[in-house]
This record gives sequence, C-alpha cells and structure tokens, in this order.
Amino acid sequence: MESDRNRILTESIKRLLRRKAISHLRKIVNKTHAADLSGVFYNLSTVDQLKLFDLIEDIEQKGVLFSELDEDIFLDLVEGIELDEMVKILEYMPNDDVTDLISRLPEETADAVLDKMKNEDSDEVEGLLRYGDDTAGGIMVPDFIALRDDTTAGEAIESLQKEHLGVEMPFYLYAVDEHNRLVGVSSLRQLVVVPPETPLKEFMATDVFSVQTDMDQEEVAKLVARYDILAVPVVDENNELVGIVTVDDVIDIFRQEATEDILKMAGVGEEFVETQTVLKSTRIRLPWLFASCAGGIIAFFIIGRFEESLSRLTYLAAFIPVIMGMGGNIGTQSSTIVVRGLATGRLNVRDIWTVVSKEIAVGLILGFVYAFLIGLVAQIQYSQAALAAAVGLAVICSMTIAALVGSLVPMLFARFNVDPAVATGPFVTTAIDIISVFFYFKIATVFLGI
Amino acid sequence: MESDRNRILTESIKRLLRRKAISHLRKIVNKTHAADLSGVFYNLSTVDQLKLFDLIEDIEQKGVLFSELDEDIFLDLVEGIELDEMVKILEYMPNDDVTDLISRLPEETADAVLDKMKNEDSDEVEGLLRYGDDTAGGIMVPDFIALRDDTTAGEAIESLQKEHLGVEMPFYLYAVDEHNRLVGVSSLRQLVVVPPETPLKEFMATDVFSVQTDMDQEEVAKLVARYDILAVPVVDENNELVGIVTVDDVIDIFRQEATEDILKMAGVGEEFVETQTVLKSTRIRLPWLFASCAGGIIAFFIIGRFEESLSRLTYLAAFIPVIMGMGGNIGTQSSTIVVRGLATGRLNVRDIWTVVSKEIAVGLILGFVYAFLIGLVAQIQYSQAALAAAVGLAVICSMTIAALVGSLVPMLFARFNVDPAVATGPFVTTAIDIISVFFYFKIATVFLGI
Repeated sequence: MESDRNRILTESIKRLLRRKAISHLRKIVNKTHAADLSGVFYNLSTVDQLKLFDLIEDIEQKGVLFSELDEDIFLDLVEGIELDEMVKILEYMPNDDVTDLISRLPEETADAVLDKMKNEDSDEVEGLLRYGDDTAGGIMVPDFIALRDDTTAGEAIESLQKEHLGVEMPFYLYAVDEHNRLVGVSSLRQLVVVPPETPLKEFMATDVFSVQTDMDQEEVAKLVARYDILAVPVVDENNELVGIVTVDDVIDIFRQEATEDILKMAGVGEEFVETQTVLKSTRIRLPWLFASCAGGIIAFFIIGRFEESLSRLTYLAAFIPVIMGMGGNIGTQSSTIVVRGLATGRLNVRDIWTVVSKEIAVGLILGFVYAFLIGLVAQIQYSQAALAAAVGLAVICSMTIAALVGSLVPMLFARFNVDPAVATGPFVTTAIDIISVFFYFKIATVFLGI
Repeated sequence: MESDRNRILTESIKRLLRRKAISHLRKIVNKTHAADLSGVFYNLSTVDQLKLFDLIEDIEQKGVLFSELDEDIFLDLVEGIELDEMVKILEYMPNDDVTDLISRLPEETADAVLDKMKNEDSDEVEGLLRYGDDTAGGIMVPDFIALRDDTTAGEAIESLQKEHLGVEMPFYLYAVDEHNRLVGVSSLRQLVVVPPETPLKEFMATDVFSVQTDMDQEEVAKLVARYDILAVPVVDENNELVGIVTVDDVIDIFRQEATEDILKMAGVGEEFVETQTVLKSTRIRLPWLFASCAGGIIAFFIIGRFEESLSRLTYLAAFIPVIMGMGGNIGTQSSTIVVRGLATGRLNVRDIWTVVSKEIAVGLILGFVYAFLIGLVAQIQYSQAALAAAVGLAVICSMTIAALVGSLVPMLFARFNVDPAVATGPFVTTAIDIISVFFYFKIATVFLGI
C-alpha cells in the first residue's frame, strides 16, 4: 500500500515535470512529507531532482530530504546546489545528521561548508566528526537535557519551558554531578508526578546504562533494543555525559546492518546497488563473481586430472551437478545460520566447537538421507552397486564438509574480528564446489577401480 | 563485548548450578536483568532453566524473561510451571506481550490461563487475540493516553499524575472528539511548555498519522521508521482510537523480519534453528534441500541425454562446475538485490520490467567479461576455437538467464503477494542450474558438431 502511494506520487510528478506545470508541482512538493519525496527522487534524473528541490519552500524539509537520500543521489544533487544555500539548510538540521552528510562530501566541499557554518554549529559538527562513523560518538546527538542532581522537579520543568526548546527528542532527563559526570536518569513523566520541590536525586533512577563514545554502533543498537529504552547516554573516558543515541537512529542502524549483511552474503558489496546505473552496478558485482570464476576454473583442472577415468565411464559427469548443488545449498544454510546468529546475538563467537560440531552432525544426517536418495537413482539408472555406493558416499562427504566449512569459516572470521558476512556467499560456496568435485572423483575412481 | 559478558555470566551460572550453590545463584539471578538472563537460558537444560526461574523473586522480571525467550524454550519452560503462577506472572505483563505468549501456548493451556486471569485483563487479551498476529491490531498496546480535545494542559497534567500511571511508555497524548475519534496529538513536553489553561485543541498537531487495525506489521514499522515517531496510533474502522504501536516493538519487527528474510533466502525455514536440537534443525532444513536434490537429478538426466556426445569429447564435463557456478552466483546476486530492495522499499513491485531489464543488462555485460576469461582458459588448454566459443557463449547464456530468473521470480512472487524471500535461495538456484547445464550441452553439441 505504501509502495502504491509512492508509485502514484512518482507518476503524477513525472507527468507534471513533462508538462512543466510548475505551480502545480510547487503545490504537490510542499504538501508532501520529505520522506515520501525521497522515494520519488530515486526515479528522477538529477536535473529533475534539482527542479523539484528548488520548489521546496520549507528549509527544514530540504534538510529532511537530504537525510533521507542515498549517498549517491545526495552527492549528485549537492553538485547543483549553491554553497550558501547548502550551509543554510545544514544549519537547520540536527547536528548528528549534518555530521553524517558532511562526512560523505568530497573533502574540499566539506571544508568549505564547515568554514561557512555558524561557529557554534561547526564546532559541534567538527567535534562529532572526530569519532568513527560507526561508533556511538559518530551517531550520538549532543542535544540532551542534563541537570545537576540537586535540581528540583519544579525547577526542571521550568528549565524545560525556557532553555531546552531545541532538544529534538526529550524523553529523559539526565542528572549529573558537579563534574558533569552522569549519575542518574528520570523520565519526563516522573517529573510531573512527584511534588515540585523534590530534588532529582530523590526520584531519579541511579542504575543508568551508558555507553562509551567508541562503542560500535551495532553494539549500541543492541543495548537499546535489549532494554527497550528510547535513548542511551554516551559518556567520554571521564564518564562525562557528551551525547545521547536515540531510538530512531537505532532503527536505522538495524535496517542498515541487516541490508549490509544480506548484500555481503550474496556478494554484492554492501551498498544497495539497484538504484545505481547499470555500469556502476556491474562494476560493484564483478569482483565478487571472480571468486566463483576462479573456483570454477580450479574445478575444471581437477576434473581434467580425471579425464582418463571419465573417458571410460562418461556417466560419472552426470552426477557433478547434484553433488555440487547439495554441498552448495547445505553450506549456504550453515553459513547463513551462523552469520545471522552472530548478528542477533543468539550465537556466541567463542562457541566455535559447539556450533561447528552441531553443524557437522546435521550435515552427516542430511548427507545420509540424500545419499540414499541419489544413490537409489544411480542404482536404478545404471544397476551398478559400486557406482551407487560411490555417488552416495560422495554426497555424504560433500554435505558434511560443506556444513563444516559453511559454519567454521564465518565463526573463524568473527573470532578474528573480520565481518563474517563477507566470508559467506561466494567464497564459501566456491570452496565447497572445489572440495565436492575433488572428493567425488577420488571416491569414484577408487570404488570403480578406474 | 556484550557477548563476552554473556559468556562469563553463562559460565558462572553453570558452575554454580553444578555446585548447587543456591544462595549464590539466587543473588546473581536477582541482580541480573531478565534480558541478560534469557541469553543464559539458551545454554541450559530445561531442568536447570526451571531451577533458575524459581529463584527469581521479582514477578515482573519473570514476565520480562518470558517475553525474551524464543518460542521453543518458552514452551518447554511453561510445562514445568504451575498454572496459578503462570497467571500471576501474566497479569503483571503488558497485555500485548501476554497476547503474544498466549497465542503460542497449546489451545487448552491458553484457555485455562485466560479463564483464570482477572476479567479485565483477559477481556483485553481476548480482544487483542482477535487481530491477526502480524497486524497493527495484533501488536498494539491498549495502554495509551487519550483525552478529549477540550481538556486543558493543566487538567491533562493532573490526569497524568492520577490516572495514567500504568501506561507503559507515555510519549504522546492523543486528543479525541466526543465519539472517541482521533483528532490530534501532543507531546508530553508541549504540555509543560504551554500555559496550563490552554485547551489541547489549541496546541495539538492535527495532522496525526494513524493506521488501521488490519495493516501488516511490516508496513506499520516502515511508517514509524519513515517519520521518526515514537508511537503510531491504531484506529478501528470508525476511526476510533483503540491502541498504539510503540517504537520498541518496531525495532523487534524489523529485526525479526530481517532474520526471517535471511533464513528464508538460505532455505532454512523462518525460525532461527541453531538454538534447537540437532534433530529438529535437521527436520527443518531437510525439505528445503529437496529442491536442490530434485534439480540435481533433473540435471543428471539432461546430461544423460548427451552421454553420446560426452563420450566423444570427455573434457566437456570439466566445464560444468564453472558454468553452473557463474550462473548460480549472479542469480543469487540478482534475487538478493530484489528481495532486499522490496523489503526496504527501494524497489517497487510494479517496476518489474525496469528492474528485470536492468538485471538482464548487468547479466549480459558480466557474461561477456567472464565468457572471455573462461573461453580463454578453454582455448589455452585445448587449442580449439569452436570449444572456446561454445563455452563462452554458454557462460553468457547462463549468466544472462540467471540474472533474468533471479530478478523476475521474486518480483512476480511479490506481485502476487507471495513472500519473495521464499522464492529465492534453493528454488532460483536450482532452476538456474538446470537451465545452465541444458544450454551448455545444447550449444556445445551444435558448435562442435557432435
């Protein structure tokens, strides 16, 4: 339904652009939420995007649109926007989003923008740029409400009415001591529930979670999800409160990490490529296929070594696809379970042997089941027990080894802090192909005495 | 880091269980957050789980633990818990979570529990059970703050202090008209910022998003993420406010849907299987491998038809793995891009031909690149131009068709409202294997005149 609405919007806008119906366009553009407009932008040329962009009247909406666009489209778009306007838009945006956008710009443009921004904002943004992109420091917002722990509820409400109007999402009120160190937290709602003269320290919760600025964003997201909180405070090495990570960013992190993992497992890089041009998409996908090509060529040479046997028993070739296919598919199952299990915290990177031995057991059982089935087909077709046995044994070997490789490789990668999703997909499948083909021919030549 | 902590906790608890150090265990269990405890439960036998469970003193923590456990572990655990205690725990939990748990129980147990629950709660839960599990109605909480739109800010604060203490996450205050129809929304913070005598209708936002009870949970989650809101109100067919979906549930939905998609694409069902026993895991994975087995057997018969040609040119067999591998991998790339693109809203289900034709173009270009490479290997090895040309053409055909099938199949599935993730993985790969092998031998026999 959402996509239907999006589709209708896109088509109306395209039609109006063709007709150059500017006043009509202006009306539509300005009553559409920027988040919806970004969906339309994916389907327009850069020139048309700029036309629409110029029609947006509310400068804040322009900022929201910036945040919603994919990196590629954003970069194409900003090339057509004047530096002054760019700076004006950025100054209206929350600083964590600004930081994110600026870190995507070419260095020169980024410096020029930072120079032009109001000092106060650009200091904050430069502060945020110091932290790694994917860390708590990089995604936190410096807009939060922190008050000394001896402030009363009444004073706190008063300060909310006067000072903290710019805070984006005021869910919690953090209490700090005289050194600005985080000591407690209270919800806005507690503030109105207690008598106004009660000091914060008497009703605040003191077991407040916080994270360090260098914590990986995925870990931060997991904490927020685990404890169902709306924001987590970020502290520096002195336990001083420097920012908060809010739940809306956590949602984005999870979606982004899931997309990255899925794309990496399929060997298509980590950025979504479908909204890019054919050539760009081709360039990103090309190197990943190289693993499978190299693997295929190795398998080619392995089979070449057995050409002598093959020429005597041609039908051996007919079993190559089923043996490769069974190994490949069970290997994909194993590695997917491991990669997703690690990402969601259901599997622990230290439990390598528990996980791998379980996978081997599953591989063995499934190997026997399908060995029987495929062996039976061989027996019916060629009435030759040695052949059926060889094919069956090859299936068992291929599936068991595939389950082993498919689970072990991502576990090992994770153990050495390499992203396990990269290990999966093309590499594991290719390794399994080679091993399967080799074992099959080895077993067949021994069993059939050729 | 999180997983390290979890690991240490699990090992301490296991050690204490072995030593039967009950008082020690009681201390640890009661100072650990139930969300962390659930991680430990995955690594314990049901008997040990029950032992730990009995040591938890805070009944609310028992409820949190229930919500955190996977369906399987939860079901094993409840078998060891008395009905009376079960009911007591459920009465302390938010009703949307209760609904979720009860819908997992065997029907008899569920009825017994509902009978025993306080009428007020069980009515609400039965109300929620009416809605589909995966709809806005099924995941909403009926705990929200709704006030008539002529209530003043001061009155609203007063009512917060007295009446709405049980509301789980009070971010927004919904304004309703005399027919209980949703007309506006205000944040808690606006309430303390305006003068106390201002009526809600003067400062509330009137462009409030709402969703119908039957909207799919994934659509609801996308709306919440799209507009960065903390909760979305759910209305029935008369536009009466009946509940809200909160952002913490949205996070769970996204993670759950991403996991489901990833598992389905790899052909391992949709529930996470690694925490289950070897036999159960085997049972879930077995049928998905059947597609690949059937496909392999079909490929076997196809190759069988070309046995005559193969016996004359044995080395044809050596190219089977590389041609199958290239097709399989590019097909996986295409279908992954489509499935994830549809899930994240970057691709529109109606743009079938745009997407598929782009994939075909990518397939053709990549096909030519790898055809050249693999053809070159063939030429070097066998110095036979016709063979090199046949192998090259087979690579192009296989990769182009794979890109077509890999993108078209999930697009078509989505078009007819079948989950595209299921279409991917084993089925697409298997189809591509069969097509690749067939085209390869067809082309080779024509080119080489055998």
